[in-house]
Amino acid sequence: MTTTCAIGLDVGGTKIAGGVVDPEGRILHRMQVPSPTDEGTDSTLAALLELVDRMRALHPEITSVGVGAAGMITWPAGRIITAPNNAYRDLPLQELLIEHTGLPTAVENDANAAAWAEARAGSGTGHRNVVAITVGTGVGGGLIVDGALLRGQHGIGAEIGHLVVNPSGNIRCGCGSVGCLEAHASGTALGRRGREVAAAEPHGPLATLAGGADHVTGETVFAAAQQGDHTARSLFDELGYWLGAGLAGLVNVFDPEVVIIGGGLMAAGDYLYPPTQKSFHKHVFAGSKRTLPPIVPAQLGTGAGMVGAALLSMERQLALAA
Amino acid sequence: MTTTCAIGLDVGGTKIAGGVVDPEGRILHRMQVPSPTDEGTDSTLAALLELVDRMRALHPEITSVGVGAAGMITWPAGRIITAPNNAYRDLPLQELLIEHTGLPTAVENDANAAAWAEARAGSGTGHRNVVAITVGTGVGGGLIVDGALLRGQHGIGAEIGHLVVNPSGNIRCGCGSVGCLEAHASGTALGRRGREVAAAEPHGPLATLAGGADHVTGETVFAAAQQGDHTARSLFDELGYWLGAGLAGLVNVFDPEVVIIGGGLMAAGDYLYPPTQKSFHKHVFAGSKRTLPPIVPAQLGTGAGMVGAALLSMERQLALAA
Repeated sequence: MTTTCAIGLDVGGTKIAGGVVDPEGRILHRMQVPSPTDEGTDSTLAALLELVDRMRALHPEITSVGVGAAGMITWPAGRIITAPNNAYRDLPLQELLIEHTGLPTAVENDANAAAWAEARAGSGTGHRNVVAITVGTGVGGGLIVDGALLRGQHGIGAEIGHLVVNPSGNIRCGCGSVGCLEAHASGTALGRRGREVAAAEPHGPLATLAGGADHVTGETVFAAAQQGDHTARSLFDELGYWLGAGLAGLVNVFDPEVVIIGGGLMAAGDYLYPPTQKSFHKHVFAGSKRTLPPIVPAQLGTGAGMVGAALLSMERQLALAA
Repeated sequence: MTTTCAIGLDVGGTKIAGGVVDPEGRILHRMQVPSPTDEGTDSTLAALLELVDRMRALHPEITSVGVGAAGMITWPAGRIITAPNNAYRDLPLQELLIEHTGLPTAVENDANAAAWAEARAGSGTGHRNVVAITVGTGVGGGLIVDGALLRGQHGIGAEIGHLVVNPSGNIRCGCGSVGCLEAHASGTALGRRGREVAAAEPHGPLATLAGGADHVTGETVFAAAQQGDHTARSLFDELGYWLGAGLAGLVNVFDPEVVIIGGGLMAAGDYLYPPTQKSFHKHVFAGSKRTLPPIVPAQLGTGAGMVGAALLSMERQLALAA
């Protein structure tokens, strides 16, 4: 009766979410704990092992563990080099988990894991060349090239958010560079632009909604757009312009079958899709002479990271068994 | 005594160059004919077949034919969809060559072929993840991901020159779009900037050298830079800034072991490398926390296209024989 399944763990800045995932990418069971905030790595490992033990007790048919974690992670070693929003640094997580669980384990960057989930069990199912982008507080994503995740030589590729789209613009990115896609087409960028226009219009809708120009966030801009505010909508037009240009560059380089957009900002899809599509068509190479990929929404939502990590661990388990 | 070798053909806008290439990528013999200019496809095919026959007569050990051709080419079918600088349109070149020669044949985009040559027998030898860029009249290149050329779903990926680096800048690219890397970091771009600054300074060195501001080209800017003209050198600084930003975006996405730069503009490497390196380091993601790829010059020069095409055809021949 039991079929194989895997644990998927999604390690974020505020919580660690876990799921028991079947080979079709369905989540059979979910649980979560807060992300440890102390500096040591022991507490993160302990939290992960606690989730693993609880899920194995419920599902003895579990045969592998996948982890999607924020940060720069080497592959195939699964070592976390840096994770800006987590307390740990330089953590050989994959090795530690294998040591403690005895199960085949794959530790992957969370954006890669989510992209893999969409390509295998979401909007990209059946496709071998996929661009998946996540537009939320930041911009992340993953690239599937000829059926495999693009990881690069050291496992730290696919930093889609740090494609350089405006090097002459002097807009600083959270990463320290200037002109990154993330600095122009993220929730953070929307909030920054919202504060800029609100400062120039201190009694306008944005400043009023937020209780002061300084308090405007991406969410304020969304709320104002929903109330019909033209300024707020124009900020979505701007964001879509950058996003569409970034996507066009990626399509010019990757020639994918499908482009998948996910992330928190897609809640504002009605405002964001039309300008993104328009800019994409303006910037894509030889658009009239080729098959252009559709731009579609992601399907798997916040579970994508754990699903993708679990699916990747099943592949690794199969490779080890072969 | 005879070892296997292959024909490599490089179909450009003005000439078709052919070479007999050994498995190590050495060119044993070269010949060339002018590119036919009439509209029909028969004359292009006839010119290619003439070169093939002449080379086979000299080297009976030839077992495959590779073609690197400008334009948008599907893969693995080797059909030329569009070639801006050649007379033919929609040409099933690979099929026609196989039919007429009876030899395994691979038709590939010329930039991909050149990148493959550099990755196998040039500056990227031994590496599995390579970004190769050619900066000449335009910007082209190829990407090797995990040991294979990135072609995308329809064989029309790797359009590095059409990475979008300045969508808000209103600089139109030859492709019809705006803000492409090619519109900012090519010989064409250098000439355009040269004419702009010469128009503002009609008795300055650039206009004087060219015999009028309207006659300034990329070559004029190079000549002025060699004579110590600060304005000309600043235009190379500009070009390097865009090029470095584009390369940083590519490295952020591909995490390669090496970045190879070739093309005509590299003759001006003394002026171009320092600003390119500076901009690259400014824009690369997490530069202080990772292994950065070296940026090195291409080795194979103008023969790269034919060498790469020949090597690709040998691989196809081996695959067919297996």
